[in-house]
Amino acid sequence: MGRLSALFDPQSVAVVGATDREGAVGRAILENLRDEFDGEVVPINPTREAVLGLECYTDVSSAPAVDLAVVVVPPDAVIETLRDAGEAGTENVVVITAGFSETGGEGATRERELRAVADEYDLNVVGPNSLGIMSTPNGMNATFGPENALEGSISFMSQSGAFITAVLDWANEQEIGFQDVVSLGNKAVLDETDFVREWGDDPDTDVIIGYLEGIDDGDEFIDAAREVTDDTPIVLVKSGRTDAGAQAASSHTGAIAGSERAYEAGLEQAGVIRANSVQELFDYARALSGLPEPEHDGVAVVTNAGGPGVLTTDAVGDSRLEMATFTDETIAALTETMPEEANVYNPIDAIGDADVERFGEALDTALGDPNVGSAVVVSAPTAVLKYDKLAETVIEKREDHDTPVVTCLMGGERARAAEEVLREFGIPNYFDPARAVSGLDALARFREIRERTVDDPEHFDVDRERAREILARAARRDDNRLGVESMELLEAYGIPTPDGEIVDDPERAREVAESIEGDVVMKIVSPDISHKSDIGGVKVGVADDDVYDAYEDLVARARNYQPDAAVLGVQVQELVDLDTATETIVGVNRDPQFGPLLLFGLGGIFVEILEDTSVRVAPIGADEAREMVDEIRAAPLLRGARGREPADVEGVVETIQRLSQLVTDFPAILELDVNPLVAGPDGVQAIDLRLTVDAETLETDDTEKA
Amino acid sequence: MGRLSALFDPQSVAVVGATDREGAVGRAILENLRDEFDGEVVPINPTREAVLGLECYTDVSSAPAVDLAVVVVPPDAVIETLRDAGEAGTENVVVITAGFSETGGEGATRERELRAVADEYDLNVVGPNSLGIMSTPNGMNATFGPENALEGSISFMSQSGAFITAVLDWANEQEIGFQDVVSLGNKAVLDETDFVREWGDDPDTDVIIGYLEGIDDGDEFIDAAREVTDDTPIVLVKSGRTDAGAQAASSHTGAIAGSERAYEAGLEQAGVIRANSVQELFDYARALSGLPEPEHDGVAVVTNAGGPGVLTTDAVGDSRLEMATFTDETIAALTETMPEEANVYNPIDAIGDADVERFGEALDTALGDPNVGSAVVVSAPTAVLKYDKLAETVIEKREDHDTPVVTCLMGGERARAAEEVLREFGIPNYFDPARAVSGLDALARFREIRERTVDDPEHFDVDRERAREILARAARRDDNRLGVESMELLEAYGIPTPDGEIVDDPERAREVAESIEGDVVMKIVSPDISHKSDIGGVKVGVADDDVYDAYEDLVARARNYQPDAAVLGVQVQELVDLDTATETIVGVNRDPQFGPLLLFGLGGIFVEILEDTSVRVAPIGADEAREMVDEIRAAPLLRGARGREPADVEGVVETIQRLSQLVTDFPAILELDVNPLVAGPDGVQAIDLRLTVDAETLETDDTEKA
Repeated sequence: MGRLSALFDPQSVAVVGATDREGAVGRAILENLRDEFDGEVVPINPTREAVLGLECYTDVSSAPAVDLAVVVVPPDAVIETLRDAGEAGTENVVVITAGFSETGGEGATRERELRAVADEYDLNVVGPNSLGIMSTPNGMNATFGPENALEGSISFMSQSGAFITAVLDWANEQEIGFQDVVSLGNKAVLDETDFVREWGDDPDTDVIIGYLEGIDDGDEFIDAAREVTDDTPIVLVKSGRTDAGAQAASSHTGAIAGSERAYEAGLEQAGVIRANSVQELFDYARALSGLPEPEHDGVAVVTNAGGPGVLTTDAVGDSRLEMATFTDETIAALTETMPEEANVYNPIDAIGDADVERFGEALDTALGDPNVGSAVVVSAPTAVLKYDKLAETVIEKREDHDTPVVTCLMGGERARAAEEVLREFGIPNYFDPARAVSGLDALARFREIRERTVDDPEHFDVDRERAREILARAARRDDNRLGVESMELLEAYGIPTPDGEIVDDPERAREVAESIEGDVVMKIVSPDISHKSDIGGVKVGVADDDVYDAYEDLVARARNYQPDAAVLGVQVQELVDLDTATETIVGVNRDPQFGPLLLFGLGGIFVEILEDTSVRVAPIGADEAREMVDEIRAAPLLRGARGREPADVEGVVETIQRLSQLVTDFPAILELDVNPLVAGPDGVQAIDLRLTVDAETLETDDTEKA
Repeated sequence: MGRLSALFDPQSVAVVGATDREGAVGRAILENLRDEFDGEVVPINPTREAVLGLECYTDVSSAPAVDLAVVVVPPDAVIETLRDAGEAGTENVVVITAGFSETGGEGATRERELRAVADEYDLNVVGPNSLGIMSTPNGMNATFGPENALEGSISFMSQSGAFITAVLDWANEQEIGFQDVVSLGNKAVLDETDFVREWGDDPDTDVIIGYLEGIDDGDEFIDAAREVTDDTPIVLVKSGRTDAGAQAASSHTGAIAGSERAYEAGLEQAGVIRANSVQELFDYARALSGLPEPEHDGVAVVTNAGGPGVLTTDAVGDSRLEMATFTDETIAALTETMPEEANVYNPIDAIGDADVERFGEALDTALGDPNVGSAVVVSAPTAVLKYDKLAETVIEKREDHDTPVVTCLMGGERARAAEEVLREFGIPNYFDPARAVSGLDALARFREIRERTVDDPEHFDVDRERAREILARAARRDDNRLGVESMELLEAYGIPTPDGEIVDDPERAREVAESIEGDVVMKIVSPDISHKSDIGGVKVGVADDDVYDAYEDLVARARNYQPDAAVLGVQVQELVDLDTATETIVGVNRDPQFGPLLLFGLGGIFVEILEDTSVRVAPIGADEAREMVDEIRAAPLLRGARGREPADVEGVVETIQRLSQLVTDFPAILELDVNPLVAGPDGVQAIDLRLTVDAETLETDDTEKA
């Protein structure tokens, strides 16, 4: 058990601000605890001697030992209460009181104080602005919500208290149980990462689910979740996915939204299964909490109804699963036992007059097939089929074969009793075939997550000092936008660039051109001129003899275009053959929650018009870099489609990793674009570069590393 | 009322094959009719005098007048029964009996006979292999299913009887009512198109829904559905969407699947709202059957809970709807009436202590805003909020403003009573915010469908006779694959092609080249050589002086490559400038259900690797052709992105229409590809052509038109 175990399993809980005033939150919490909690309940209120018949104390210090204090005092008394608890040796506090950072101004100041006190006394603080917490094994309902949770193996955190209230009311009706429930509130101290870690260590939690509007520290969350999802699935609704939603979330919690693209990549890298709605959240959770892992993706469908069977097959086609191909033995066995009109291929249609026995035989045979990793039982109500008996048979066959089975016993009231029996044995029943398959799909997704290997970022041997100098030079120059004049930065990190040099007189330009084989490319170098081509600032294929004049012309054009532009010189560069090569782009920008975000795509229209890009949170290793290349739709172009010679994809993969290392080493790099990174059959070359550096961060960074 | 009205509203129904044997289908149907039907019920069975206490007749002819005969006799007695009914003047027959085309062989023959008898007597036949039909206003349950439907305004057809049984059991629990229900069975006579027409004319049907595994005549269905959806929404689950599903559907109904791409295009063109699951089908139907049309896409969200409000906003972001921007007046009014902590921007968060009155005020204000076209009321259960009272308030405000409102009163049992009240007034309640928004989205989609104008296909003045000759020539040649030698076909239909000619001697080649300005392109013309470039059979940019030698070389290469290839000559063609132009592709193939399917995309990687194409069922008019161009992802390239000169998009649009006319005029054209159709700033040109002709169809076609 982690360090938070006492939060969920205290021997005694104090309610600071307990009262017997009707309708008061301090009363609701005390009542909830008094009614069900297995341990000691201690009201704290300096103005009362007893509350609801329980002896009341002035403060935590004067009360008997308190493992958890639930605080419902007015906002300006919270800090003092925390000190009191800290002094008394109480380690766990839930702050229900609102009026902190969510109100801005004074509230935000108060929340900083709260964090300081928590630090000082090493307190585990949930909230402030929390509905409270629950843990079902000891009957602890330390919330002011109207509903207690049923016991189960799902642990549930939510950044919205109302979401918990709404879900519990519904879950109780559906008999879905929980282990621990936490209303995260403002997350001043404990946040999603802490609970992911805690529940990952909790043997009684089979699935972690959550509703989040933001993740505080993306990097830390990815690390924690990756570890936890080796054993325990995490399913999250992260709202604010759309622009409108992000705006609504930001006005709800006051959090900086961060980009959806970063969340998408970060949660995927973390191994989180993402749900887009409340329904999906529980459809997935129900399957993940009660069923074993499927051994592979083959699904058998057993039904008494053709139409629903086809619908289920469509749903399998939409998912990551596939319809199992039965072995000859299975076909033979089914042919023998099923009536002539039945379909013995997958989906098995045991036809309309199938009774429980025939259903059971078909399921038994299907589950015995080595190509079947999971099964869906789909039925329409008929006169000869008793749903409750069918449920028992499904449970029996599922356990015999230790294979995940979900059901879709279609119908209304007559399905309810069967549903209840199935639920007890961990088998979720869904009304809709598509939802039943989505439950199995979540199991398959979790198997993928468990089986994937995420290699650690490789540490390339680079010249970090030289890179730092180049960045520092830019910082000193009071110019945070760097361009092609900083190509050395890439060289320092081992990324191939074309031969060439930036020169500041025409004679030197000719010398450099002569040292390069073939014609050259010449570009004006000026941080003030961003669209060089537009002013004729780029000359492609210049012969050595023409280099002198070309130099003069380029400089003249720049002066003419913008007399006050700082001209750093002219770049004379090897001409890269683009006929057999493909232009790609590797970009980086920084997300407030997840840090550096790598982006890959093919150049030109592919990124700008088709928006065909892939994204990862840095740092990444070779596997993830390779995924970035392969998941763009145009990837076949790099891999050698349509008779082209394949490009050096491994060169691209290594460049992405080296850039990942660069931006991880230097948080001062706010944005960076290598555009194009040309990938030919024999290697890659970074042709142009733009980046933005934050001078201040660079200094801090320098200090830190020194 | 259409010609099928008597099917659903008969005065008397005979059950042919009625019996009192327990468990027999002939008893189940009779019982269902006897229990609820308002009219006369007549058992027919030559071996009994009475069945279930009702007087029994030998055959339909000897019984009193029968408006509808439900037939459950053995398969080999069905034809005779139909004759009997026909002779007796009965116009409507439902054949429950199975053992027809679904069993193949003898059954298929029997179904052809059935169709012939139906033709002879002009019978409306449902089935065979049908569960039966229902109509709630007169209490007619002429099915052998265990459940009767509740009365409502949804009419429902299904190609799967089990699907009906499953849905009714559930719908009764949910109190969802129906007008008519039809189990289509094998659709030997009446099919989906007939019922769409019938219900389109039925003032009591507000929504038509269906489960289909195939559509028999796509063209006819599109015509009927387009007309009906001017007033009545159609929502369909068409299963067999995926490859696996299509295979399952084909083994279930024995129907040829047709391509999903054709269904997707055809149903869209028909104005059908497509649901991908049972849940979606009813989520959409519930909204469409009870609510008025929204005037525009602005949605207001009113909630007492931040988190669920954000989730709802995300769902709006995912849909075709948008969050309404409130007017200053609305903001001012809300600011005045809501507490300080409330959010008065959209989503309106009336916060956790909102009672029904505050909710009502917020909703009233929102619905009064001219930017609000519809609203979602989202709530979490709280101590101060009574859901049943909230329901009443929502009903009242909705009616006051005549604006569609859906609700998402989250929770379990406490939401049920409210749900019931809401349902009575046509307001669907959904547990999940995403589903609530999908209901409104269906309303918005239907508005789009009603508002769209689909222009009739233009009839271009073409040389149809010349086209017929070219095709006939190919047919005579015993070679159904045509290539560039048939470019005249395009010319006959007014599609621009480059200047040029197919010649069969080098001297003539030079003459043609000299008559063309600039260099020329030369290609070997042979139906036996499909990849001309691979054997060096194409020469681009040949100067006039080199044409003679080029001719000799091309022919030599062809002979060398394939000595027995038929060489029709060499094409000498104007060189089209590709620098400022974009290569596009227009293709046609024939779908068994929908007929000619037009495909559009950009050439090369765009079609082959990115699969960026659009599809329509021909014939189409200018609007739909323009949609085809604009809906591909790469459309901006044609429209002039990234500083390119825009291509002649209207030229492309016209070419698509002319090809639509060509393939509609000649069903004998099985496949056709214009690749590339080059689109430049000043016009389009078809550079190359391949097509496949079915000689047999051409003859039939010729005969027909003659």
